[in-house]
Amino acid sequence: MTGTPLVAGNARVKDTRKLSRRSVRTERRLFLADGPKAVAEALALPGCVVEVFATPQATEQHAGLVDGAPVWTLVDDRALASLSDSVTPAGVVAVCRHLDVPLEEALSGTPRLVAVCADVRDPGNAGTVLRTADAAGADAVVLAGSSVDAYNPKTVRATVGSLFHLPVALAPDPDAAVAAARGAGLQVLAADGDGEVDLFAADDLLARPTAWLLGNEAHGLPADLAASADHRVRIPIRGRAESLNLATAAAVCLYASARAQRVS
Amino acid sequence: MTGTPLVAGNARVKDTRKLSRRSVRTERRLFLADGPKAVAEALALPGCVVEVFATPQATEQHAGLVDGAPVWTLVDDRALASLSDSVTPAGVVAVCRHLDVPLEEALSGTPRLVAVCADVRDPGNAGTVLRTADAAGADAVVLAGSSVDAYNPKTVRATVGSLFHLPVALAPDPDAAVAAARGAGLQVLAADGDGEVDLFAADDLLARPTAWLLGNEAHGLPADLAASADHRVRIPIRGRAESLNLATAAAVCLYASARAQRVS
Repeated sequence: MTGTPLVAGNARVKDTRKLSRRSVRTERRLFLADGPKAVAEALALPGCVVEVFATPQATEQHAGLVDGAPVWTLVDDRALASLSDSVTPAGVVAVCRHLDVPLEEALSGTPRLVAVCADVRDPGNAGTVLRTADAAGADAVVLAGSSVDAYNPKTVRATVGSLFHLPVALAPDPDAAVAAARGAGLQVLAADGDGEVDLFAADDLLARPTAWLLGNEAHGLPADLAASADHRVRIPIRGRAESLNLATAAAVCLYASARAQRVS
Repeated sequence: MTGTPLVAGNARVKDTRKLSRRSVRTERRLFLADGPKAVAEALALPGCVVEVFATPQATEQHAGLVDGAPVWTLVDDRALASLSDSVTPAGVVAVCRHLDVPLEEALSGTPRLVAVCADVRDPGNAGTVLRTADAAGADAVVLAGSSVDAYNPKTVRATVGSLFHLPVALAPDPDAAVAAARGAGLQVLAADGDGEVDLFAADDLLARPTAWLLGNEAHGLPADLAASADHRVRIPIRGRAESLNLATAAAVCLYASARAQRVS
């Protein structure tokens, strides 16, 4: 923690910077958590953090974090900026182990509320759904199909710490996610603008343990996947908008469940 | 509509490009609507569109739009791209007149649901709130305080057409927006993480005509503005997330009202 801060050209810094690429993240099963809040959340999770890179100034400012880190490495401002995807880096970045768990583990216990994203492509949307699922009290989030990388820096940032709060599973095959949800005692509700069930008139349904299937930003859910759900539920559109965006639709659905499950 | 397409260096194209700057938009009370969907929505609004710029290819592809445009000007691909802020321009951009109306006009009639954004700074968030308000059946949206420009290209895009669907008012003074809402017979509810009212247990309240006060992404509502509301309402946070993001919080609040007003 003392000594000369590493510079951007340092071999370790350069090697760590490669984690900005999804292929490298996947191969090493590592990712970067950026900023004091994310680093603090990561450090609170036993075994998650491999190493923390911080500027001397940030080290002084966030002295409380140092003791919890297995390795705390000083870097200069340019080196830190090269590890951060933020426009205004906050001076501290943690190298973290991947957090996703197998589907069965994510859905173990007696889950009551789960979000399954199929083919979500925008990193910010995926992160916002994770944050919203956390806030609504969901037990797990599944990123299914060809969804964006959960460890994309934009996704991590949009979760505002929630990535470290609840189990996340990856399911390249969305049908496997649906099957696993049923196996865990959850009904599967598809959020679908053309759904046969009106969200506003479905409290009995919503009160049951539920996995919400949420589709792609532009194309929604594939028809066969929506058809495989127990019910397709539409959020009423009162005005002239054609639809809601993915993250807001997820918020309305997950909170409708949280509300109905509360009074049940 | 025939003739040589204008090039990027053409004086009219260069002058129109200046509308990417807020100061120029404000001075001229004009803005750009990008892509066939937005242009179609703009053309559907009498008197909104001043001129449409389109590539020959897009003109062929969207021939149905041409008749509705007061002026339809052909431009080449580079000229079109210089007017579009999209990474993959769709070949058609409309110069539109500003749509905002005075507060009193936006809140005329007997409004039942209005969203008032105070100091919303992210263009995408502002646009998403507008889209969500439209979907939830809101009668108007007010951008109050130092909110982002409603005509920022990112805002326009995030509204996915809803900017053209419901009245928008600008209120540099948020207190004036609160007063106008009360004057229009609306109760004012502040979305506030520390609010004294639980959103899940407030249906009687939510059933009344309501203006929702929504705060800044990072700082929420200023304390004195929140205090000026009739009630401060919190969205229950069940998990370990600290809060919701602005657009998802707006969705949960507006849809809670839409639902309660429906059964009332």
